[in-house]
Amino acid sequence: MKTRAAVALEAGKPLEVMEVNLEGPKEGEVLVEIKATGICHTDEFTLSGADPEGLFPAILGHEGAGVVLEVGPGVKSLKPGDHVIPLYTAECRECEYCLNPKTNLCQKVRATQGQGLMPDGTTRFSMLDGTPILHYMGCSTFANHTVLPEVSLAKINPDAPFDKVCYIGCGVTTGIGAVIFTAKVEIGSRAVVFGLGGIGLNVIQGLRLAGADQIVGVDLNPSKKEMAERFGMTDFVNPKDVDGDLVAHLVELTKGGADYTFDATGNVGVMRTALECAHKGWGESIIIGVAPAGAEISTRPFQLVTGRSWRGTAFGGARGRTDVPKIVDWYMDGKIDIDPMITHTLSLEDINKGFDLMHAGESIRAVVVY
Amino acid sequence: MKTRAAVALEAGKPLEVMEVNLEGPKEGEVLVEIKATGICHTDEFTLSGADPEGLFPAILGHEGAGVVLEVGPGVKSLKPGDHVIPLYTAECRECEYCLNPKTNLCQKVRATQGQGLMPDGTTRFSMLDGTPILHYMGCSTFANHTVLPEVSLAKINPDAPFDKVCYIGCGVTTGIGAVIFTAKVEIGSRAVVFGLGGIGLNVIQGLRLAGADQIVGVDLNPSKKEMAERFGMTDFVNPKDVDGDLVAHLVELTKGGADYTFDATGNVGVMRTALECAHKGWGESIIIGVAPAGAEISTRPFQLVTGRSWRGTAFGGARGRTDVPKIVDWYMDGKIDIDPMITHTLSLEDINKGFDLMHAGESIRAVVVY
Ligand SMILES: NC(=O)c1ccc[n+]([C@@H]2O[C@H](COP(=O)([O-])OP(=O)(O)OC[C@H]3O[C@@H](n4cnc5c(N)ncnc54)[C@H](O)[C@@H]3O)[C@@H](O)[C@H]2O)c1
Ligand SMILES: NC(=O)c1ccc[n+]([C@@H]2O[C@H](COP(=O)([O-])OP(=O)(O)OC[C@H]3O[C@@H](n4cnc5c(N)ncnc54)[C@H](O)[C@@H]3O)[C@@H](O)[C@H]2O)c1
Repeated sequence: MKTRAAVALEAGKPLEVMEVNLEGPKEGEVLVEIKATGICHTDEFTLSGADPEGLFPAILGHEGAGVVLEVGPGVKSLKPGDHVIPLYTAECRECEYCLNPKTNLCQKVRATQGQGLMPDGTTRFSMLDGTPILHYMGCSTFANHTVLPEVSLAKINPDAPFDKVCYIGCGVTTGIGAVIFTAKVEIGSRAVVFGLGGIGLNVIQGLRLAGADQIVGVDLNPSKKEMAERFGMTDFVNPKDVDGDLVAHLVELTKGGADYTFDATGNVGVMRTALECAHKGWGESIIIGVAPAGAEISTRPFQLVTGRSWRGTAFGGARGRTDVPKIVDWYMDGKIDIDPMITHTLSLEDINKGFDLMHAGESIRAVVVY
Repeated sequence: MKTRAAVALEAGKPLEVMEVNLEGPKEGEVLVEIKATGICHTDEFTLSGADPEGLFPAILGHEGAGVVLEVGPGVKSLKPGDHVIPLYTAECRECEYCLNPKTNLCQKVRATQGQGLMPDGTTRFSMLDGTPILHYMGCSTFANHTVLPEVSLAKINPDAPFDKVCYIGCGVTTGIGAVIFTAKVEIGSRAVVFGLGGIGLNVIQGLRLAGADQIVGVDLNPSKKEMAERFGMTDFVNPKDVDGDLVAHLVELTKGGADYTFDATGNVGVMRTALECAHKGWGESIIIGVAPAGAEISTRPFQLVTGRSWRGTAFGGARGRTDVPKIVDWYMDGKIDIDPMITHTLSLEDINKGFDLMHAGESIRAVVVY
């Protein structure tokens, strides 16, 4: 079949919207009509050329929602008409990782996914002249139709609006999951969140959901304060307004250090601050942000010997097929909010405007609706 | 009263054995006759002058065992004749730290202890000319008699031999506790232990106790191999004998990375290796070693985002009054071994020889018996 897609032809260039060829689903694969997709920093990271593992030409996008059109041989858990969210972290429920309750990093389709290929080592997309186009993060939601492995699709509540719950495909789950699945924050905790962008706001609402007593938000941009308060932030700190040491200021504000701290900036200096303002004895610091290639974190080991833990999270520690449908239900039940974070809705033709809005810091999330 | 003690008069000089004055126990304090004391690297660190927080003149020593001679007013949990192990990490059971199940770092006597003083801000020791002598780590076991807060004493099985269980006052508990209380290693785990000195050997026997399947020991000194095997090591790696990357070698040896790794060297480069050879998705690396002042650990944050945790432990995460008596019982029941690690026994007069043996790398533990 043919479908329309925004294709990343090479690094540093805008996407080109064009018609492409899409082969149908093979064994264990599923054809999905994408109804909406968010534009995330990771897409931008790859498109810019900064991602050393970026490959071209490719169809980017990994934060989508859609409907199953057709299933390949052997597919049991999905059927045409099911509503789904594509997963860049699959959940096969049978690999060594899936069987270990401590991790969500399913390895089933990892190797081929990293090469922009389907599990059989080939691509389903091609240019009209036959040139293969690579998949991206196993999802490629910047195409109106895409093919994914069955293990990379979460089946969700069919009443959920695509243009909102697509954001659960990455940002919402990453932020809320970091709190609920990775840190397992307890009622009454004090927390500090660094970076109040799309991820940080979701960390904040995750903390509210977990019953945290104090939710400190830290951002260099004071315009982030209002929205963060709406999602549950109790205290705002702009590092530019702090005289003296930021760590000391945050330790005092949290009465001895925070039980949990989260980096949602990707800045390695911020990651150190986040660790060091965690409470002696038990504070945990969780890295969510993705640092520039080669950047390193550091601290004195005494920080850890005196009881702080330094951890990280990918996709919020969520097991996609199990947890993503739950998060969709939390949204449908009003336990979490998404609508105010979808600041812009675009057509596929205007997808490059979504990247411009991100660069300008004007959007929290721009969503393309097909 | 008067007692004999090895006094650290100034940094970098040998200890001087002399008679000193000791005041009796005040409110909440206990007079203990020390029967035996180990000589640990931390004593050496302070005596050498390398410890920026070292204070002089002081009576060092923090790894002892003895008998209660007299209790001050208000002391309820101890009486004359009780056998005890002094605790440099107190357990008051009422401070914010003691009431938090995630930490063992009781703060009750912390501030004064760090200044070499009893909780009332004074010292019980003095020179015969009246010059005050400071306490050390709240213990000062290099004196035949010493005074401690009640909360800094663990009451132990009276049948336990002082010259062996004194080692539970620091080294044994630090190593075994890192496995049992901090990491909570599960049956069947794979582990790597860096540094096979007094601490590392106890990590190894802690891993055996916890039912680890693979216990890899890493040391630059091949003479450490035999003793480590006796305590449960299953594989030995000398980094000097590894061609190429040590991390890659250890990941292969542990079939994908270790579930738990432990640094018992104090070297920040080793700490990084320990983190990076932990298993993607769930590996935890525990820092036990104390690094030189100012040294920093570093790594790429990606190591944490992909599921490794970086943690540390002080006194093996043990709550002294609760856990030290248990570890003494484990020794008495033959669950753990201590005797082969006590390689030298000395009189107080010969205590400086104990430091020489440590410098020469000839002792695992030298113990002074009064
Ligand atoms: N671990 C994962 O699974 C995962 C998933 C998605 C995104 N991410 C990463 O999360 C990070 C945040 O993503 P986002 O979409 O929220 O980005 P964003 O650009 O929308 O938000 C970042 C925020 O951090 C603030 N900031 C920047 N430098 C700061 C500093 N030094 N101190 C305080 N605040 C500072 C900015 O003002 C901005 O508000 C990125 O690094 C992204 O790559 C990680
Ligand atoms: N966290 C705590 O509560 C606590 C308590 C006591 C001691 N410690 C610390 O634990 C550490 C170990 O103490 P110990 O008494 O076992 O010391 P030790 O000197 O007896 O043993 C250290 C071992 O590490 C080995 N080693 C040194 N550099 C190495 C390298 N680069 N690679 C591999 N092996 C290397 C040495 O050969 C030696 O066998 C020290 O730093 C000590 O200060 C911490």
